[in-house]
Amino acid sequence: MEMELDDQGHMVVRPLLTDLYQATMGLGYWRAGRACEEAEFELFFRHCPFGGSFALTAGLQDCIRFLRAFRLRDADVQFLASVLPPDTDPAFFEHLRALDCSRVSVRALPEGSLAFPGVPLLQVSGPLLLVQLLETPLLCLVSYASLVATNAARLRLIAGPDKRLLEMGLRRAQGPDGGFTASIYSYLGGFDSSSNTLAGQLRGVPVAGTLAHSFITSFLGSEVPPDPMLAPASSEGPAVDLPASVNLWLKRVCIYLGLEEREPHPGERAAFVAYALAFPRAFQGLLDSYSVRRSGLPNFLAVALALGELGYRAVGVRLDSGDLLQQAKEIRGIFRTVGAEFQMPWLEFVPIAVSNNIDEKELARLAQKGSEVNVIGIGTNVVTCPKQPSMGCVYKLVSVGGQPRIKLTEESQKRILPGSKAAFRFLDSEGDFPLCLLCPFSSLQSFSDVFLASYTGSLLLDLLQLAEEPPPKAGQELRVWLQGAQEPCTVKPAQVEPLLRLYLQQGQPYEPLPSLEESRAFAQQSLSRLRPAHKQLQNPAVYQVALSEKLRALVDSLSARGAL
Amino acid sequence: MEMELDDQGHMVVRPLLTDLYQATMGLGYWRAGRACEEAEFELFFRHCPFGGSFALTAGLQDCIRFLRAFRLRDADVQFLASVLPPDTDPAFFEHLRALDCSRVSVRALPEGSLAFPGVPLLQVSGPLLLVQLLETPLLCLVSYASLVATNAARLRLIAGPDKRLLEMGLRRAQGPDGGFTASIYSYLGGFDSSSNTLAGQLRGVPVAGTLAHSFITSFLGSEVPPDPMLAPASSEGPAVDLPASVNLWLKRVCIYLGLEEREPHPGERAAFVAYALAFPRAFQGLLDSYSVRRSGLPNFLAVALALGELGYRAVGVRLDSGDLLQQAKEIRGIFRTVGAEFQMPWLEFVPIAVSNNIDEKELARLAQKGSEVNVIGIGTNVVTCPKQPSMGCVYKLVSVGGQPRIKLTEESQKRILPGSKAAFRFLDSEGDFPLCLLCPFSSLQSFSDVFLASYTGSLLLDLLQLAEEPPPKAGQELRVWLQGAQEPCTVKPAQVEPLLRLYLQQGQPYEPLPSLEESRAFAQQSLSRLRPAHKQLQNPAVYQVALSEKLRALVDSLSARGAL
Repeated sequence: MEMELDDQGHMVVRPLLTDLYQATMGLGYWRAGRACEEAEFELFFRHCPFGGSFALTAGLQDCIRFLRAFRLRDADVQFLASVLPPDTDPAFFEHLRALDCSRVSVRALPEGSLAFPGVPLLQVSGPLLLVQLLETPLLCLVSYASLVATNAARLRLIAGPDKRLLEMGLRRAQGPDGGFTASIYSYLGGFDSSSNTLAGQLRGVPVAGTLAHSFITSFLGSEVPPDPMLAPASSEGPAVDLPASVNLWLKRVCIYLGLEEREPHPGERAAFVAYALAFPRAFQGLLDSYSVRRSGLPNFLAVALALGELGYRAVGVRLDSGDLLQQAKEIRGIFRTVGAEFQMPWLEFVPIAVSNNIDEKELARLAQKGSEVNVIGIGTNVVTCPKQPSMGCVYKLVSVGGQPRIKLTEESQKRILPGSKAAFRFLDSEGDFPLCLLCPFSSLQSFSDVFLASYTGSLLLDLLQLAEEPPPKAGQELRVWLQGAQEPCTVKPAQVEPLLRLYLQQGQPYEPLPSLEESRAFAQQSLSRLRPAHKQLQNPAVYQVALSEKLRALVDSLSARGAL
Repeated sequence: MEMELDDQGHMVVRPLLTDLYQATMGLGYWRAGRACEEAEFELFFRHCPFGGSFALTAGLQDCIRFLRAFRLRDADVQFLASVLPPDTDPAFFEHLRALDCSRVSVRALPEGSLAFPGVPLLQVSGPLLLVQLLETPLLCLVSYASLVATNAARLRLIAGPDKRLLEMGLRRAQGPDGGFTASIYSYLGGFDSSSNTLAGQLRGVPVAGTLAHSFITSFLGSEVPPDPMLAPASSEGPAVDLPASVNLWLKRVCIYLGLEEREPHPGERAAFVAYALAFPRAFQGLLDSYSVRRSGLPNFLAVALALGELGYRAVGVRLDSGDLLQQAKEIRGIFRTVGAEFQMPWLEFVPIAVSNNIDEKELARLAQKGSEVNVIGIGTNVVTCPKQPSMGCVYKLVSVGGQPRIKLTEESQKRILPGSKAAFRFLDSEGDFPLCLLCPFSSLQSFSDVFLASYTGSLLLDLLQLAEEPPPKAGQELRVWLQGAQEPCTVKPAQVEPLLRLYLQQGQPYEPLPSLEESRAFAQQSLSRLRPAHKQLQNPAVYQVALSEKLRALVDSLSARGAL
């Protein structure tokens, strides 16, 4: 509903997916003769999500596509006319009909960048009325994508590099594109794969999936496979009646495990056999439809050993209920002894996958040293971001006609930084003076925790300055204002990186957008340069975003003028 | 991306927006010769969201549209072939290409129904492979829509009937259709309007919106309107130079309020004048861009009084920061005295709108007796449902070939109720024996709280029984099993309502779907029949979903067989 096709066949957001007040303000600007004044908005956030100290940016491709396709259709303009005053000048609607983004330019943090409070994710400049109209869709496209990418990055930090993380939250998502967006950007943030088939088809995300309980419970055990025969993996030798072979193996397994042969559920076994006949090279068992120990596990072993005899190796088991860590430990132990008993040593290494509403805390438990879990499926807790389901990005006017603008409000934390700005990231190098020694600054108690340790090429701070100022240089001392500081301090970066790149210039693509794979690699590389104190997920040290002296002076002078 | 157009031009979810395991299971069913066996799945939830005791159902129209349009395109089948084993029988893919929903039937709770744990929201029957494939998209379409409708209903219960509730969360939503879906279903759940223009255009939701801080801060005060003249509301008499008139009124207002005339921000006043010139009959002021008391309020009053002199009445003010309740009280007082002073008594009644991350707790504060707030805008907290961002609906196989199916798992709460079922709602009437007196049942301590008070025609309980059982009759005693009970109890409903209706029969529409307005009215009517103890938002009494004796016996026998 909220989408339409652009001329390249991509789905893009429809222009009226916006707040009505953008249109009423549009009429206000137009009536004031200001529709075409050059304006600049910044899209940023004020607080890092989830109580952390960083965010990852995402959603840029959808923004650029939206902007390039932006046109109000006749039906759109007619709808606006129906909700605006009946005596509105028809010339206003002609103006709307003619709008496109050919005068809009966009600078942005590259997809997968680390972002910090107050640093613009997007800078959008163009005609005042038009760039105002763009506010809501751009916020909608950037905020959730970045929130999910950040959430996924946190989960990857908890899981460590070796566990395989599968996103499987489509069914829990806040609507179809909540699910689609989550699949793409959880991959960007560090997941390995998704259950979402469409994310594979349209965006190349690796997809994964095997079987659900319904497949198991659909079998009673009385079903007869149309073709029960399976040829050996090598294709050499005669085909074997798989169900018959499984029944023989079941006897041996039950004796070894001390179970009665009638205990494992025959329907579950028939389901495993059916799956194995369809996927002999990719057989997996979902073990908990009835009872793991007395049914799922012996049935799985019987099928896996029958397949093993034919040269196939089972590729996994999955658990979806109970104490996942403990069960994985027990199952690994049984795989080990059964593998040894029946001379199939590969059995010991069959991956164990788990799922069941896994959150950050449970993930930490499953990732602990000695855990026998290999693959972790996460749904609700990566997709809906329950710790904080909205990023809280804002899109604020910073200049009109080249003149800076400020908003003060009744809450100081809702103020904005005025003026067209540039942003830089400062890195230090091994052996640098810790910044705290240069800085006559004592109001933040945890500050020294951040800067006492020095890492090669790790992030020091971000600097916001006015666009007109000369860029800072590596190796040169600079006076900057840290947040909450009463005086400026001096900093000497070993490296300086400009942060914002031009992606759309007067409606035309400028710098090309990276692929999803490239952005994913960039995100992990960016995270690796973050100090451990900033990477901490609970009570992290605050990453500093400093202001140049000129920007700080502008804030002071406009605040004084605005507040009178 | 995740949508395509159906043959009526509606956006529908693409078939591959599903978990990959639906396709791998599909191959498993097909290989086992079972693809076309008749199967039935139920979509339901296990726990009411937000710790409440009810949910509202929503999303049915999107489900029916999705099912009617369901076809796998060549590109879809090719993608599946690329991720399934390379030696998969091509006949399987031919089977997929031919799939449509012409053999699928759907019964459902009507849109906007009250729903309780375990009662099916949807019953989907048809060929096993196909109805399995439908799982994920149906869950995705129903869960979030129902979650938002329920959330909105809770917020409406808190706000009471008189406050106007505006949904304005598009920018905070989890992606574009998160926002679109939220706008539609928060209206269904009891909101009055939405800021989302597209929801107005496509689904008829009333839309509302005025102006943002960017509009205010874009003006410095030096701007000259191209046409400052405004004719009186009656069109009789000469047009007036509005900015000049506003300046005269400002002097009088400042003297009356004890402010210096230079205090109110000239840019803010210019913005108000520009908005008033565009919307003389719908002028609203956003008061907190600089300072409410010293700038926003006097500027608003100057413009409102200048308009008033011309016969126009301002329609509102909005606050977006600070203590909203307290400010509203102060502003109402000033409106009252200023209206009296300048003989414009209507000023006292100008609606006060507020916004700023309002949640259930703050809403209760703003809705308290004596509050001067009239309109409440809610964004993040209605759209993203932060108290519980996912509904946790499931879609479970209950029968194949007419035979009931059960799943047990390692957690008793993840069990399912087997068999094709019917559902009924029992209502009592004034003077009925309270149920607790009929019921030899003591394990639920809060039970008597629920049933001691008797309300005319209010909801008593829901009953699940096997589809083959005769429907229960009003006025007849019936033995049923309540949750957690050790023995059955007897209940005599004054009224019995069948809950599930047939909306799709063998792929064809059967009962027509109601309009959004009808569903909205139905939802409010349904809520009005819920007892206060169930309507409570914190620690409500549990609404009982009982099982018939036959259904209970089937659960017991299959559990015993499954668990062996």
